[in-house]
Amino acid sequence: MEYKISDNLASLKPSAIREIFKSLTDPTIISFAAGNPSPLSFPAKELGEISADIFENSAAAALQYGITEGYPPLRKAVAERLQNKFRIGREFDTTIITSGGQQGLELACRALCNPGDVVLCENPSFIGALNAFRAVGAKTVGVPLHEDGIDPAELEEALIAYPNTKMIYLIPTFQNPGGTTTSAEKRKAIYAIAKKHSVMILEDNPYGELRFAGEDILPIKSMDEDGIVIYCSSFSKILSSGMRVGFVCAPDAIVQKMAVGKQCEDVHTNQFFQMLCHRFMTERDLDGHIAKIRTLYREKCTLMLDMLDKHMPKEVHYTRPEGGLFIWCTLPDGVDMNAFVKAAIAKKVAVVPGTAFNCDTEAPSQSFRLNYSTPSDDDIRRGIEMLGEVAREMLG
Amino acid sequence: MEYKISDNLASLKPSAIREIFKSLTDPTIISFAAGNPSPLSFPAKELGEISADIFENSAAAALQYGITEGYPPLRKAVAERLQNKFRIGREFDTTIITSGGQQGLELACRALCNPGDVVLCENPSFIGALNAFRAVGAKTVGVPLHEDGIDPAELEEALIAYPNTKMIYLIPTFQNPGGTTTSAEKRKAIYAIAKKHSVMILEDNPYGELRFAGEDILPIKSMDEDGIVIYCSSFSKILSSGMRVGFVCAPDAIVQKMAVGKQCEDVHTNQFFQMLCHRFMTERDLDGHIAKIRTLYREKCTLMLDMLDKHMPKEVHYTRPEGGLFIWCTLPDGVDMNAFVKAAIAKKVAVVPGTAFNCDTEAPSQSFRLNYSTPSDDDIRRGIEMLGEVAREMLG
Repeated sequence: MEYKISDNLASLKPSAIREIFKSLTDPTIISFAAGNPSPLSFPAKELGEISADIFENSAAAALQYGITEGYPPLRKAVAERLQNKFRIGREFDTTIITSGGQQGLELACRALCNPGDVVLCENPSFIGALNAFRAVGAKTVGVPLHEDGIDPAELEEALIAYPNTKMIYLIPTFQNPGGTTTSAEKRKAIYAIAKKHSVMILEDNPYGELRFAGEDILPIKSMDEDGIVIYCSSFSKILSSGMRVGFVCAPDAIVQKMAVGKQCEDVHTNQFFQMLCHRFMTERDLDGHIAKIRTLYREKCTLMLDMLDKHMPKEVHYTRPEGGLFIWCTLPDGVDMNAFVKAAIAKKVAVVPGTAFNCDTEAPSQSFRLNYSTPSDDDIRRGIEMLGEVAREMLG
Repeated sequence: MEYKISDNLASLKPSAIREIFKSLTDPTIISFAAGNPSPLSFPAKELGEISADIFENSAAAALQYGITEGYPPLRKAVAERLQNKFRIGREFDTTIITSGGQQGLELACRALCNPGDVVLCENPSFIGALNAFRAVGAKTVGVPLHEDGIDPAELEEALIAYPNTKMIYLIPTFQNPGGTTTSAEKRKAIYAIAKKHSVMILEDNPYGELRFAGEDILPIKSMDEDGIVIYCSSFSKILSSGMRVGFVCAPDAIVQKMAVGKQCEDVHTNQFFQMLCHRFMTERDLDGHIAKIRTLYREKCTLMLDMLDKHMPKEVHYTRPEGGLFIWCTLPDGVDMNAFVKAAIAKKVAVVPGTAFNCDTEAPSQSFRLNYSTPSDDDIRRGIEMLGEVAREMLG
């Protein structure tokens, strides 16, 4: 039988990164391609202790169906943490649990966008979000990402050019893939422009707690007096990515519709791990644990930057992140980025080509993304040295 | 700000059952309204033992990102079980893991349906599936459910009346809410009609392992030589509903697109519980465990039927299921079903009104759904006695 696939999914390709992830079964490849947190960032021993207690004392509740919006004690603990850490959450806001931050992004788009509507995104941006928007039939349009975030004037131009824009999607802190952080001034200006044009902001903050240098900058959601910001984040980078527990804080009217969508997708998020997260948050030292992850990533990022400084030709540009998981490298004009990535994989070093992150899937890119949280220190040393060799060969 | 919700989600209401579930916090209410498996059906002790071992020996893998299609050893174990138990899975089929059976149903519709397309459903049918189809913009059209399944001739009439039908959604075994099972003859006839009209069948089989009386009937998928059946099921009713682990077996071309959709929704299913399911399947006695659940549900169903026989006026009709979780009761014409349900809740007994399961959300119903897996034996005795009182009062 010839299958007729829906318009929304017919043209959509699997994420290049997830595909690369699948192909990385060759243990001799040094991978800078993943977006995985370090396995050292999972507090396995403590999670195991709490888990044993849940199986002993609360198994029936932990293994049974739960409420779509999430395990109430976890929702409360997350709402309190968002308030205390980030000054997020006003009277009109509601916090719900999602199956990873990904589901929050996807549900926000399902709640707001009809096919053909536009989502303005930083360009480049997170491929998982871009694909989720496309799978709803929305069009992803890029606003160029600079070292301190998108330019508010360029954002307003795009809003005027695309009057059917329903959402502005931003990762203001430690952007993926850019590794950049939007300045406080730009955050204010972006918020004002969104308000002026009555367009919602979808703020994605999966890496916000992973700052290892510089000063904290509050999320855009912290200034949301008008109920125009949907805030998504998750426990993936601070407790466990494989458990798929994230959260959304957004105006209640939007959250209600997102919950209806969530009910259709998976009824609710894994109940056992919701209880595990709640117990860890309230009984253990989450901040102390995060401090350890920050130290780890500071060391790994510094090592990778040191190696890049040492081995990369000076014509190759790269960001110097203050947190998060990624460094964004840009080759000089005239060098073929795809050829570079292929030459690297021939030397058994994997990076993600920048084209994967483009809002316009046909657009070229001079850049590639490096991840420093997953590889071992030794792999960082050897892998970057080899990337340097490839670059020197190609730059002649 | 006035929010503009997308067309697909704007009119969609949360599932009546999930809403009833939320409101059942009053511990004095006897609830026959849930669709929950009995907490006695969760092998908590054994899951706890395996869990401890995973935290001890495989924590890094269990807490890390996984592959969208699912944990490979679990996919293999599920595919083998489907083959051995149900003769399901041909060369062109692929088995993937989903976040509960619900996600499989939703992804099938996302993969095949554009807004306005029709999904033919048994009427009444599972509200979670109906809402998932509606959330994609598909139209749910009912084909009347009889004691032995839908009528093939009526199905063909509907296919002719709705030429933009993309999918036929069926729960052939222990239907929810009907408690009915489609006969082997009808399954064959339905398959032949779907093939003739080149329309896919979405077969939902969450209760298929819960037969406690009568003879096994193979799923429609077992006769799928033509690659026209998408088969969805889950571990919710045999290991744990709260963990949200389900699976799909369908032609690879369809599964590929469903996986792209899944990547957008939640990246992958909780990795830890995928490993837990795999270990339970391969190291413990899953069939022995299911045998215990069958015995439990046989006893509970028999008790509820005995009480109905004793207390219900003979004008009230109810199905006599051979498995699954539900009994479907129908009041005689002229009795107001909604008034009955309200009178029952006034006596602190909750049931689900049949209107919740209608394909046409505006259509009336004379029926209500009873669940026997969740309530205690004592609650079954007292609750049915009270429902009998309400019925006698209303029938005069």
